[in-house]
Amino acid sequence: MVNEKLYEKLAKLAVRKGVNVQKGQLLVVKAAADIAWFVRIVVKEAYEAGAEEVSVEWRDNEITRLGYAHRSEASLSLVPDWVRDREAYRQEKHACFLNIISEPPGGLKGIDEAKINAYQRAYHEKMGDLLNYTMNNLGQWCVVGLPSIEWARAVFPGLSDEEAFEKLADVIFRVSRVEEDNDPIAEWKAHDNALAMYCQRLNEHQFKELHFSNSLGTDLTVGLVENHIWVGGGCTTPQGVYFDPNIPTEECFCMPHRDKVNGKVVASRPLSYNGKVIEDFWFRFENGVVVEHGAGKEAQSLDALLAFDEGSRRLGEVALVPYESPVSLSGVLFFNTLYDENAACHLALGRCYPENLEGGVDMDKAQVLAHGGNDSMQHEDFMFGTRDMKVDGVKADGTIIPIFRNGGFVIGGEQENG
Amino acid sequence: MVNEKLYEKLAKLAVRKGVNVQKGQLLVVKAAADIAWFVRIVVKEAYEAGAEEVSVEWRDNEITRLGYAHRSEASLSLVPDWVRDREAYRQEKHACFLNIISEPPGGLKGIDEAKINAYQRAYHEKMGDLLNYTMNNLGQWCVVGLPSIEWARAVFPGLSDEEAFEKLADVIFRVSRVEEDNDPIAEWKAHDNALAMYCQRLNEHQFKELHFSNSLGTDLTVGLVENHIWVGGGCTTPQGVYFDPNIPTEECFCMPHRDKVNGKVVASRPLSYNGKVIEDFWFRFENGVVVEHGAGKEAQSLDALLAFDEGSRRLGEVALVPYESPVSLSGVLFFNTLYDENAACHLALGRCYPENLEGGVDMDKAQVLAHGGNDSMQHEDFMFGTRDMKVDGVKADGTIIPIFRNGGFVIGGEQENG
Repeated sequence: MVNEKLYEKLAKLAVRKGVNVQKGQLLVVKAAADIAWFVRIVVKEAYEAGAEEVSVEWRDNEITRLGYAHRSEASLSLVPDWVRDREAYRQEKHACFLNIISEPPGGLKGIDEAKINAYQRAYHEKMGDLLNYTMNNLGQWCVVGLPSIEWARAVFPGLSDEEAFEKLADVIFRVSRVEEDNDPIAEWKAHDNALAMYCQRLNEHQFKELHFSNSLGTDLTVGLVENHIWVGGGCTTPQGVYFDPNIPTEECFCMPHRDKVNGKVVASRPLSYNGKVIEDFWFRFENGVVVEHGAGKEAQSLDALLAFDEGSRRLGEVALVPYESPVSLSGVLFFNTLYDENAACHLALGRCYPENLEGGVDMDKAQVLAHGGNDSMQHEDFMFGTRDMKVDGVKADGTIIPIFRNGGFVIGGEQENG
Repeated sequence: MVNEKLYEKLAKLAVRKGVNVQKGQLLVVKAAADIAWFVRIVVKEAYEAGAEEVSVEWRDNEITRLGYAHRSEASLSLVPDWVRDREAYRQEKHACFLNIISEPPGGLKGIDEAKINAYQRAYHEKMGDLLNYTMNNLGQWCVVGLPSIEWARAVFPGLSDEEAFEKLADVIFRVSRVEEDNDPIAEWKAHDNALAMYCQRLNEHQFKELHFSNSLGTDLTVGLVENHIWVGGGCTTPQGVYFDPNIPTEECFCMPHRDKVNGKVVASRPLSYNGKVIEDFWFRFENGVVVEHGAGKEAQSLDALLAFDEGSRRLGEVALVPYESPVSLSGVLFFNTLYDENAACHLALGRCYPENLEGGVDMDKAQVLAHGGNDSMQHEDFMFGTRDMKVDGVKADGTIIPIFRNGGFVIGGEQENG
């Protein structure tokens, strides 16, 4: 362990600011079995914060992989009722969910896409409306990362295990704003406020569409739904509990109109999808739908993602991230969306977030669709931001307002320090 | 890892002989999160043996302890329905269960007994008849042990971590009959046959009662139920699958009559109960019930065990184990019943095994009770065998047949080598 104090600060941040567990609440922690040492710190912190019960749902990459390798599509498609019942029970108790990720990318490399899709489809069908709980922020949830040697090897393949781990740990603490002599909770409060300020300005403009362009070949117009809401930093549950769903987060994100995306977008970073790492890929949209695409590596995975369902060929999220964000400045490619999405502007194929639409959280799927939101069993972020990204906002009357120049906000408001 | 090959042999033994997973079967593995490396070997072996699905139920001693320490009795008494539903689902699918133990003793030292009992009671009530599945051998199950540093520290407190672990690993492999140059599955087949032979002789005699005496102060008469069945080694499910519930096992065990136990028994080894280690304890029985008892250490835990319910003050099992068994010869006190019960003759307070009664598996609780079997939410083994243990069998006509002299079988049949 590099520095025990930093891990304790990270656990405290995740518990008290990230998922913000309340007195008497049930907390569900999801984590890999081999980081039990850290989960113990988290569980202790959660009880001390007043949790009534902390339940841990363990997973193991290698065992998941063995299951996919040996089980049939039919077997993988049978998701038992108790899995749904467990989730329903937790939601009825207003549980909150903390997911700690520490796994290396590419864990399902070589596994038949059809099997992965079969399980995903069965799982989504079995869970049904229960997926709305986190999607609509009906309860607190948080995803936070922990360095591991396996992950470090993938990120710094040229280094020794020890050096790679040190470097990954160092950068994860840095971008999580956890330092030896700071108060991470105070840092995150200030950062949440800065993101809220950018969102407020964007919301006031109510842009009809955004236009993205850069030297990588992106030339894309993303129409936004009417009465959209830009969201960034933390969220608030219907019970009034403020929480940070992602640590770190650097984005302001919004809801694209499912029929109003046109042009070409070129990804600027690889995408880790279903355990594969897709590289050098691009899409061309017409009226919201991907009509052409290509990839340099793992093209079949990209095909599978697009073919998953009708909604997986349309956008569900557009997000603005300054190229000077801490994750971007680190220069590290984490092969994990939690971090990599905070290095650059990004889009997501698939399901939209109803919170990005006025009254969306209280609408049913059909109503969200009618407003231009997208639905899918997937929600896959991919990065396309670059140092020279230019973003313009186009208002209903045709006025053009510069939002990004040279990869950073120019829409006004004070720059955040830190 | 001391010797990778030995661990692979142990995993294979547990999967193919212990729980004997069948083609197309669901296997549930229960294990501590920090032995994920070994669980991966087990899961791989199980899929290669033809399992349709291997599901892992992880646990962590420290997190369990935190839960007991912080949760209220009321909170611990709420066992959700999904826990029952999960078990019911698995039993409907004819799942088999492999429990891998690696934890040190005393994990719940200092925890309020009332809390532990509250959870145990709630769990037993929620599970109800589902507990019969393994109790009545309706499906295969197996408990096997794996050495861990934490456990080794408790067993060999004077040694360095490395030395202690080496010693514990060495003895666990030895008593599990796993050696570099042997075939553990063949060893266990031969051993199962030897135990079956002793059981057959005991069954032919249909003793009315057993009389135990030794120099430690034990002078105890244990009446047996009529039409009892001595069981040892492996068992067979109603579907005809042979399995070994315990690796290792050295015992031939039977069903005491719940009202016909009289005299004093002095324990010869400590008992690890609910995470406490009870030492130097004894009981005096009258007509089946403990009427007097004492303990040198953790006496409160012993009180709690006896007070748990009406059946926890009566015997549910009597077992004969030669003092020259491999576990006994090792001279090691494991602080774990899986091993320690195989070092010496033992008794269990609490629930009986219906398989020890002709037709018992098909009886309901009331019928088993009517035949003299015992019921309880507990089943706690404790050791009382010694090097000078003498056991006589008394037949209905008063004939006395010597069963044990000087701690070993004298009832006839060939001695087992190995």
